Amino acid sequence: MSKVEVLFFDVLGTVVDWRGSITEEVRSFLNHQKCKHIDAAKFADAWVGRYDASAERVRTGKRAFVSLDVLNMENLEACVAEFELRPPNLQRTDLENLNQAWHRLKPWPDSAAGLMKLKKSYIVAPLSDGHTRLLVDMAKQAQLPWDVVLGADIFKAYKPMPQVYLGACDLLGVAPENAMLVTAHDYDLSGAKQCGLKTAYVIRDHANDPSMVDKHKITDEWDYTAKGLIELAEIL
Amino acid sequence: MSKVEVLFFDVLGTVVDWRGSITEEVRSFLNHQKCKHIDAAKFADAWVGRYDASAERVRTGKRAFVSLDVLNMENLEACVAEFELRPPNLQRTDLENLNQAWHRLKPWPDSAAGLMKLKKSYIVAPLSDGHTRLLVDMAKQAQLPWDVVLGADIFKAYKPMPQVYLGACDLLGVAPENAMLVTAHDYDLSGAKQCGLKTAYVIRDHANDPSMVDKHKITDEWDYTAKGLIELAEIL
Repeated sequence: MSKVEVLFFDVLGTVVDWRGSITEEVRSFLNHQKCKHIDAAKFADAWVGRYDASAERVRTGKRAFVSLDVLNMENLEACVAEFELRPPNLQRTDLENLNQAWHRLKPWPDSAAGLMKLKKSYIVAPLSDGHTRLLVDMAKQAQLPWDVVLGADIFKAYKPMPQVYLGACDLLGVAPENAMLVTAHDYDLSGAKQCGLKTAYVIRDHANDPSMVDKHKITDEWDYTAKGLIELAEIL
Repeated sequence: MSKVEVLFFDVLGTVVDWRGSITEEVRSFLNHQKCKHIDAAKFADAWVGRYDASAERVRTGKRAFVSLDVLNMENLEACVAEFELRPPNLQRTDLENLNQAWHRLKPWPDSAAGLMKLKKSYIVAPLSDGHTRLLVDMAKQAQLPWDVVLGADIFKAYKPMPQVYLGACDLLGVAPENAMLVTAHDYDLSGAKQCGLKTAYVIRDHANDPSMVDKHKITDEWDYTAKGLIELAEIL
């Protein structure tokens, strides 16, 4: 196996608990708006669940690239309508603050420590549909020790578009076979493998987009499989 | 004064001692090649001194963007010819290894500690003519705690081209007046100021391109002036 120099990480679901974090923020928002009758987990899953379809319009060229802040805000507004959320004092800034929850997503317990171990031997970088500022805010808050941050806005594309994986390898000065994608999502592993990158599958509960049927399974298609980032560091 | 969220740093001369570091690496190379009769400092200054003219061809559109690795290698080969360096056992890999010296430039003594202080209150990012991989290698070796690394290859441009400063602000999601450039070079401060960024001038001895007349002076044109990054952190 050719030497891997760079580890790219999916972030949403793989490094941070997006569904759990968004649920917590939605719950706090609903309490504040005196809308406790709405189920926070359902609202959160509806919001997160709109993400893939909205990114797909960019992937298929139906829409020019816009950042996750824009997609998330549109999807949040759609959820507000869908759940018939009509608090009397709702301000635009309340929704903007809730939308910023994506900049504050909380890491899985092993993420920061796993990255610290892995960065001793590899360049570690997020390769996410999140944009640069979102990933930087998240890393500062969660103390994720990235060596370099590559947001979707650098490539103006969403995974699994090949220009994301290949553009990232180009910026890090490595051939695809000298890079590995670490992710909890099958479609992401497939996209990276098709571009020639090595692949590591991280098993995470509750990590998949709620809009997609949870059909991922442990296969031997990927170069490595681990239950978290500390285990991955031990395997590598 | 509007609130500054992001500090961008020039790197070559401002954060690392490029001329000193290159001189040390050249001396080691010349000793190894049994060419001690050549003055290492003169060779290093000749090499570093070719950088600006070669970047200028990209700035003026005479040449498509290529990374500093490419420019440096061409300039190194020109210096080998200029100094009539003809060691009997010179291999291509020896020159390639010397060219990698730019990935190993050493920081000024206050750089890492100053950045640690500054990153408590700001997003800190290099904004350099160096490309992403060069900056990442340097940061890992010198333990520079960047929040995000923005190489010239992201913008495919060299400072003071406006797309570097404005593109960096765009990726960090800030208006130019909410960002500040920290640098030891006048032309860089002027470029940033023209794009609407705040400016901090760091006084560094031996920091300027040896090909350019050392005409920089302390003026009140810039928002802040400091003798190093720790002093800058104290001022801010």
